[in-house]
Amino acid sequence: MQTVSENRSFGGVQGVYAHKSEATGTEMTFGLFLPEGDGPFPVVWFLSGLTCTHENAMAKAGAQAHAAKAGVALVFPDTSPRGAGVADDPDYDLGQGAGFYVNATEAPWAPHYRMWDYLAEDLPRTVFNAFALDEDRQAITGHSMGGHGALTLAMRQKGRFASVSAFAPIAHPAASDWGRKQFTAYLGQDEALWAGHDAALLMRETGFLGEVLIDQGTRDQFLHLLQPEALAAAMAARRQPGAFRMQAGYDHSYFFIATFMAEHVAFHASALGL
Amino acid sequence: MQTVSENRSFGGVQGVYAHKSEATGTEMTFGLFLPEGDGPFPVVWFLSGLTCTHENAMAKAGAQAHAAKAGVALVFPDTSPRGAGVADDPDYDLGQGAGFYVNATEAPWAPHYRMWDYLAEDLPRTVFNAFALDEDRQAITGHSMGGHGALTLAMRQKGRFASVSAFAPIAHPAASDWGRKQFTAYLGQDEALWAGHDAALLMRETGFLGEVLIDQGTRDQFLHLLQPEALAAAMAARRQPGAFRMQAGYDHSYFFIATFMAEHVAFHASALGL
Repeated sequence: MQTVSENRSFGGVQGVYAHKSEATGTEMTFGLFLPEGDGPFPVVWFLSGLTCTHENAMAKAGAQAHAAKAGVALVFPDTSPRGAGVADDPDYDLGQGAGFYVNATEAPWAPHYRMWDYLAEDLPRTVFNAFALDEDRQAITGHSMGGHGALTLAMRQKGRFASVSAFAPIAHPAASDWGRKQFTAYLGQDEALWAGHDAALLMRETGFLGEVLIDQGTRDQFLHLLQPEALAAAMAARRQPGAFRMQAGYDHSYFFIATFMAEHVAFHASALGL
Repeated sequence: MQTVSENRSFGGVQGVYAHKSEATGTEMTFGLFLPEGDGPFPVVWFLSGLTCTHENAMAKAGAQAHAAKAGVALVFPDTSPRGAGVADDPDYDLGQGAGFYVNATEAPWAPHYRMWDYLAEDLPRTVFNAFALDEDRQAITGHSMGGHGALTLAMRQKGRFASVSAFAPIAHPAASDWGRKQFTAYLGQDEALWAGHDAALLMRETGFLGEVLIDQGTRDQFLHLLQPEALAAAMAARRQPGAFRMQAGYDHSYFFIATFMAEHVAFHASALGL
């Protein structure tokens, strides 16, 4: 693993590191914030949205202030494999920057687009080996495509995460143009294989063992693609402990994320016993 | 004036606006954060550093959270005139993105590089006419080149600002490669004309009527260009009320700025009677 950069931040260190991923077969870059002290620190994972790298949330979500206060570490993974030899597409919502947190089975994506394995196994093993982090205390959140990733990982990796939250998640990708296009490309035509990557469907099937917190802006320009109503209905039908909040006037931007980040970090810190 | 964008943020609105500037003769873009409520709001100006536009601090400094809490507005001006027909230079530290908050007298800069007038008169008139802001309650801060701009404006526009602060300011540009090059280009060879744009020299001459707060990281990669010791010595020699703080381990990045932004906003809010 290589250190790309380390900046002092709120008494701790905001680092950026690169490592060779077994899952994707590429070099992957991630951000890691460690608060002041010796650890081991509980971890909150932040999965980013379409077009993002590890860098966007690290620079614009204002999460470090709250993580430092709570004493939790933050991990900011990339959203896809990248580089020469990695398939890509001219559209912003397919290929590099748009991994959708699945293991692709279809050409030309299958060789490197294994973001599910990357986040379920590979990157966790890497960071728990290298840093003073408490593997037994993990929580996860994300934005848009990353909210989709956070919810699906949390519901399927039972016991790994104490809590899950999301900012404007792609809630029902199997029924949305943000989902059908990508699942067809990455997973193929058989829609039965998509269900394990659809938060609303997973919520109806199994739910989450801990608390769930969802924030969605009422003036989000992508509401028709996010389909929050599908997840809200599923949470209610499931009697899922947690809250689905519609935030008046907020859109899809990092200004929205930053506004509610303090509450999300506090939500996870509480679930992690802090 | 045109609205470029408006995003809800911490209960208020983070806007971006464009206007025709009389000072620069160009279209200028600025960011403005208004907290929730009717105003008129006290104003904190944030001047940015080399290579920045209005956007960097608006997106990465985390200032809106603190401004919303304090009930102050924030203005994020651009750092130079821009566009076709505006002189530029291949170097990052001269021309567009590097206006240095002076009125250029030399060719080819003189026609548009009038950032002193822009911030001393033009942009204030524009925003006080258009928004619910309290012209009698202003404070100013900035980073690097913008720290230089904040300090020089505050010391020369006596009575305008209740308080001034800076993050890693270019403290003594008349004696630094971040200053001598640009002052020569914009103002000419006569160094006597530079003194009104040098924070350390102005501090020795006149000081500031209110409190001054300076934060400087000890691991700033540009310490030799910033010359903080010149300003610290001048503040002490002047018996200037305020604080010059060396922050252990911090560098020149926005991670440094974000870490101490809450304290700077609270410092200004107190001076503004909030």
